[in-house]
Amino acid sequence: MAGRINTIMQTCFFAISGVLPREEAIARIKDAVVATYGRKGTELVERNFAGIDRALENLHEIALPAEATSTREPAPLVPADAPAFVKDVTAVMIAGRGDDLPVSALPVDGTYPSGTSRWEKRNISDIVPVWRPDICIQCGNCAMVCPHAVIRARYYDGSALADAPDGFASAPLAGRGFPNLRFTLQIGVEDCTGCELCVEACPAHSLEAAGTRAINMETKAPIVERERRNLAFFETLPDNKPAGVDATLVRGVQYLTPLFEYSGACAGCGETPYLGLLTQLFGDRLLVANATGCSSIYGGNLPTTPWSVNAQGRGPAWANSLFEDNAEFGLGYRLSLDKHREQAEELLRALAPELGSVRVRDILEAAQVTQDDVDAQRLRIADLERALESLADPRARQLRTLASHLVRKSVWIVGGDGWAYDIGYGGLDHVLASGRNVNLLVLDTEVYSNTGGQASKATPRAGVAKFAAGGKQSRKKDLGLMAVAYGDVYVAQIAMGASAQQTLDAFFEAEAHPGPSLIIAYSHCIAHGINMRFGMRQQKLAVDCGHWPLYRYRPVAHGRQKPEFVLDSTAPSIPLKTYAYNEIRYKMLSYTKPEEARRLLALAQDDVDQRWQVYTSLADRWPARSRRGQGETGSHVEAPAVGTLG
Amino acid sequence: MAGRINTIMQTCFFAISGVLPREEAIARIKDAVVATYGRKGTELVERNFAGIDRALENLHEIALPAEATSTREPAPLVPADAPAFVKDVTAVMIAGRGDDLPVSALPVDGTYPSGTSRWEKRNISDIVPVWRPDICIQCGNCAMVCPHAVIRARYYDGSALADAPDGFASAPLAGRGFPNLRFTLQIGVEDCTGCELCVEACPAHSLEAAGTRAINMETKAPIVERERRNLAFFETLPDNKPAGVDATLVRGVQYLTPLFEYSGACAGCGETPYLGLLTQLFGDRLLVANATGCSSIYGGNLPTTPWSVNAQGRGPAWANSLFEDNAEFGLGYRLSLDKHREQAEELLRALAPELGSVRVRDILEAAQVTQDDVDAQRLRIADLERALESLADPRARQLRTLASHLVRKSVWIVGGDGWAYDIGYGGLDHVLASGRNVNLLVLDTEVYSNTGGQASKATPRAGVAKFAAGGKQSRKKDLGLMAVAYGDVYVAQIAMGASAQQTLDAFFEAEAHPGPSLIIAYSHCIAHGINMRFGMRQQKLAVDCGHWPLYRYRPVAHGRQKPEFVLDSTAPSIPLKTYAYNEIRYKMLSYTKPEEARRLLALAQDDVDQRWQVYTSLADRWPARSRRGQGETGSHVEAPAVGTLG
Repeated sequence: MAGRINTIMQTCFFAISGVLPREEAIARIKDAVVATYGRKGTELVERNFAGIDRALENLHEIALPAEATSTREPAPLVPADAPAFVKDVTAVMIAGRGDDLPVSALPVDGTYPSGTSRWEKRNISDIVPVWRPDICIQCGNCAMVCPHAVIRARYYDGSALADAPDGFASAPLAGRGFPNLRFTLQIGVEDCTGCELCVEACPAHSLEAAGTRAINMETKAPIVERERRNLAFFETLPDNKPAGVDATLVRGVQYLTPLFEYSGACAGCGETPYLGLLTQLFGDRLLVANATGCSSIYGGNLPTTPWSVNAQGRGPAWANSLFEDNAEFGLGYRLSLDKHREQAEELLRALAPELGSVRVRDILEAAQVTQDDVDAQRLRIADLERALESLADPRARQLRTLASHLVRKSVWIVGGDGWAYDIGYGGLDHVLASGRNVNLLVLDTEVYSNTGGQASKATPRAGVAKFAAGGKQSRKKDLGLMAVAYGDVYVAQIAMGASAQQTLDAFFEAEAHPGPSLIIAYSHCIAHGINMRFGMRQQKLAVDCGHWPLYRYRPVAHGRQKPEFVLDSTAPSIPLKTYAYNEIRYKMLSYTKPEEARRLLALAQDDVDQRWQVYTSLADRWPARSRRGQGETGSHVEAPAVGTLG
Repeated sequence: MAGRINTIMQTCFFAISGVLPREEAIARIKDAVVATYGRKGTELVERNFAGIDRALENLHEIALPAEATSTREPAPLVPADAPAFVKDVTAVMIAGRGDDLPVSALPVDGTYPSGTSRWEKRNISDIVPVWRPDICIQCGNCAMVCPHAVIRARYYDGSALADAPDGFASAPLAGRGFPNLRFTLQIGVEDCTGCELCVEACPAHSLEAAGTRAINMETKAPIVERERRNLAFFETLPDNKPAGVDATLVRGVQYLTPLFEYSGACAGCGETPYLGLLTQLFGDRLLVANATGCSSIYGGNLPTTPWSVNAQGRGPAWANSLFEDNAEFGLGYRLSLDKHREQAEELLRALAPELGSVRVRDILEAAQVTQDDVDAQRLRIADLERALESLADPRARQLRTLASHLVRKSVWIVGGDGWAYDIGYGGLDHVLASGRNVNLLVLDTEVYSNTGGQASKATPRAGVAKFAAGGKQSRKKDLGLMAVAYGDVYVAQIAMGASAQQTLDAFFEAEAHPGPSLIIAYSHCIAHGINMRFGMRQQKLAVDCGHWPLYRYRPVAHGRQKPEFVLDSTAPSIPLKTYAYNEIRYKMLSYTKPEEARRLLALAQDDVDQRWQVYTSLADRWPARSRRGQGETGSHVEAPAVGTLG
C-alpha cells in the first residue's frame, strides 16, 4: 500500500489512545475495511488487513528529545538563481503566504509567467529511475512515456565532458558516423513521482543480471545530491536543434526539449505524455486552449505552471476556459491569428515597392508545413523586421507589430472526454464543422477523472463509474466516427502505449492538415483501478483486444485527391475480457453482480466486433497509398515502429 | 406577385402624393428594384417592373361617400358556440385588447387551453380548393400534404346524409364490400391559406377536362357560406376510429383526425404536414417538447394554439423550451413519465390481492406497441379505475391519481435544423446517448428560417444563406449518420413529397422503437426561394438527385437480432443541378459569382456521390429482411406506396 497511510495511522491511533478497548477498535477497523473495499475484491481487503497487523507489530515508542539537535536547515523554497518573479511572488505562494502579496506584485495584464514548475522541487518519491548507459539502446521510449518530463536526452560533442561533474554518465551516441558525439539520459530525480512507467517501457535488458534494464528504480536519498549536480551540468549542454534530428521517429523526438514539465498530475498519468510530446513537436509555435478537467488543473495550478519556454524564450501560450465553451474559445484563437496574418499580408503587399517584390513573394508563398518550413520562415521574418526598421513609412511600423503573425502558429484545443464527448461536445462539433485550421486533442480516460469518476459518454459498456454504478448500459460514443462523417476533418485514434510511432505520425499529420483535426488519445488513469506502473501495457491490451482500434482518417488535402483511412492496428487478437478484467472498473461488477457482469461483457464484446467491421469497411472504402502521410510529416520514409511501450 | 403589395402601394403613393416629380419617383423606384432583386435574376426584376407599370395603368380615384351606407355588420370575432374561455379571453386578445384582461382571467397553473385556432377564422386566401367527388380516387394525398389541416376526410353510413345541408358533397366509399358507406372530403375554406399543395399532390385527372383534377382552386367568395354550413355538418359526423382504418397506409391515415390544425405557418409550409401526421398517428398519447424556431412560433402564437384535442378530449400536451435545451427538456418528460409509471406499477403489485392477480398481470405485461395495444390497455385502465373506487385501502386512492400513467405515452422532441444541428445539438446528442424511449423529429429546412435565413450546419454546400453569402463552403452535416454511430438509435431520413408511405413507415417505427429515435424530415421552405405550390415536387427532386436519400436504420429491438439499414430511395437519377437550380438560394450565386457557383456545385455533386456510396455500403452491411418493420407498425403487409406527392 505504498503511499497510503490512513489505515496505518488510524490503527496506531486507536491502539495507543484508549478511546475504545484495543481489541474492539481493531475489529471495527477491519469491519470498515470490508465495508469499504469488499466489492473491489478480497485481495484488497487482505492487503489492508496485513497493513493493520503489521502496523501493530511495528508500533513502538519514540522518545521526544528535550531540544532540537539537528544541524540541518530547511532548504530554501526556490534556489537563489530563480528569476525575480519566482522569488518575489511564486515562492511566497509556495510558502502558503499568498495573502500577504500586494496586488501590485501580480502581472497587470492577466498574463502569467510560464516555466515556473521547475523551481518547485517537490521530491515526492523515495525511489527514482537510474540510467545504465551500458545497457541503453537510446530508443527514446522512456523519455516519451515519462508523464512529468523528468527524463531528458541530449547528444553533444564529447569535448563538453571536460567540465562535467564527477559521476556524470554518458555513452557514445548510437548510430554510425558520429564518433565524437556522446549521449546522456538525465533524470530530474527531484521532480520524479516514482511511477515506473519508464522502467516498463524500456526494451533493453541486461544479459548478465536478470530483471535489470537500461533504466531501473533505486532509492533516491543516496543519489539526490549527485543527480542535482548532474542535472545542472546537463542543462548547460546546448539544445539539440529540431533541424538536427529526425523528429518523426521516437528515437529522434527524445532530443526535443519538452515545454510541459514537472506538472502536478498523478504519478503515472496517461494524459501528460501526450502533452509533453505536443510541446516537443510544436512548442515553439503553440497556442493551447484547455478545457476544464484534469488537464486544466495540473496545467495551471498556482503557484506554478508546467507550461514552459525553450532556450530561445519561445513556448506555448496557454489559457483555460470553461468546460462548455473550450472548443469555441480555441476557435477564437484561430480567428484572431488569421485576422492578424491577413492584416500583416496586406501591409506587406503594400510595402512591396520598398521591401522588394521577391522578398515579399517568398514570405507570402512560403509553404510552412514542416518544422523546417517554419524555421525558414522565421529567418525570413527576422530579416523582414530588420528591413522594416530602416523604413520611414508609417505602415512599416505597423507591420513590425504584426510581422510575427506571418509565421504559422499551431492552435490546439485540449481537454478530456467529459469536455469532448459531453459538456463541450456541441461546441466541439461546431468547430469541427468550421473548416478552420485548429487541432483538437482529446485525452480520453473514459470517465470524468478530475471530479471523481463520473460516467461520461466515453465510458465503455460494462465499465463501472459514478452514475453507472451497475455498469454502463450503453456502448461508448464513437466520437471519431462522428467526426469522420464531416469528410474534411482529420481524425486519428491513438494510444501511445500500443504504438508510439503511430502517435507521432498522428500528431504531425494533424498539425499539418489545413482544416480541423481531431486526435482521440487513450489515456490510462487511476480511475480505471489499475497498477499505474503497467498503464502503457494496458494501453496495448486495449488495442490488441479491439476496444481501441488505432486509425487515421486523412481528408483531401496537400494534393491528396481522395480521403484515406489508415487502420493502424490489426484485428482483435485477444478477448475483451483479457484487457478489461485487469481493471477494477470492470472487474468490481463481477463481484457485486456476476450475472449482470457476464451479460454486459458479452454485449461489450459485440461492440468490439461490430466496431472492427465498421473500421475495416472504412479502410476498404478509402484505401491509403502509404501508411505515412504525404506532405504532412517531415519525412516520407516508411520507418519501422520502435516497438510498443507497455 | 400575389400577396405582395409594397411595390404597388409605393408606386401609387409617389404617383399621387407629389413628394417627388412623378417621372423621377418612378425611375427611382425601378432603380431600387434593380438594387434589391438584381442578384436574384432578371425575371424577378421584370416582374416588379411590370407590377409598377400596371399599378400606374390601373390607378384611379374612388370617391369617398359622405356616410357609410353598407348594411353589412362585422362578423363576430368568435362564434356564439365557442367555449367560455375562448369568448372571455381568446376573443379579447384577438380584438387586440389583451391588456384589458385581468390577471384572474388567465389559468392559475400555467397550462393553457388547446384547440383554440379553430375559433379564429382568418380567411386569408381568396382562392380555395374545391373537391370533385366524381374524379377523386380517395387516395388521401391532399389531406396529408395540407400544411394547415384544412382538408379532412371521413367515411360514414349513407343514412347520415338525411340531415346534410344542400350542396354537401359525397361519393361512395372506394373499395369493395362497403355498399352503404359514403366518403366526403371536406375543406375548411376559411382556414385555407391558398397554397395549392393539395392540387399538386392530386394524382387524379379528369378525362374530359384537361387540367382538372379531383381538387381544384376556385374563388372563395361565392362558396364560403355553403362550405361553412358543410363543415359544420361534417363535424357532426362520427369520428372514424383508428381501429377501423389501416393507418399504416396514406389512404387510411386521412380518416384520422389531425390534432394540429389551422396554424399560423406560411402558406405551403413544408414542416407542418409532418406535425399534422404526428398528431393523427399518436395525438391521443402525445407529449411534445418544442424547440425555439418556426415550430415554436406557429405552434404557440397567442392568442390561439393549433394543438388540439379529439372527440374524447385527448390531445397532445405541448410546451416550448429554449433553443439550447429542448432535447433535455423532452428527456425530462420521459423521466417523469417513467417515474410515475414505476410508482403506479408498485402500487398495482401491492394491491394485487385486492384487485386480482390476473388483472394486475394483464396490465403489467401489456405489449403497448401498436395503437390497438394502447387502446386495449386504456380499457384495462378504465376498468382498473372503476375497481379502485370501491377499495378502502388508501393506496387505492393514490393509484387512482397515477393509473393513467400505465398507458404508454409518446414523447416527441421537435424542432428545426438550427436547434438540432447547431444550438441544441449538444443536448440532442446527449439524449440520443441516453437509451431512453424518446422520439426526435427534426424539421430540416437547411437554414434558420424563423430568424431570417441564417446558415446552419444543415445548410448544403453551394447554397446561399446569411453568414454564407458567397455560398456555403462546407458540406451539410450528416446528422443521421452521426446518430447511426450510436448503434441503438432508430434513425430515419424522410421527405413526404418523395414518399409519403416511407414517411408513414418511419413515424410508426420510430414511435414503436423502445429507445431513442431520430427522424430527419426534409421541409421545403420559403427561405429556399421556390414557388411553394411546387414544394412537394421539389422534395421529390431532392431525393431523385441524391441530395436527400431516404433511409431507415433499425437497431436491434422487438426480437430483431441484427440492425437493418433500409435504403428507401434509388440511386441518384438526375444531376444535383436539376434540383438545386429550381431554388433561388442556389441559383443566385450563379448570377453574382458564376465561376464560384460552378466550382461549389461541382463539389456539392461530389458530396452527393460520396454520400450515396456511404449509404449503399451501410445497406450492404445491415441488410433488411423486409422493407416494413416487424412489430413496429400495425400492419406487416408489403403495401405499395400511393405514388409521390410532388
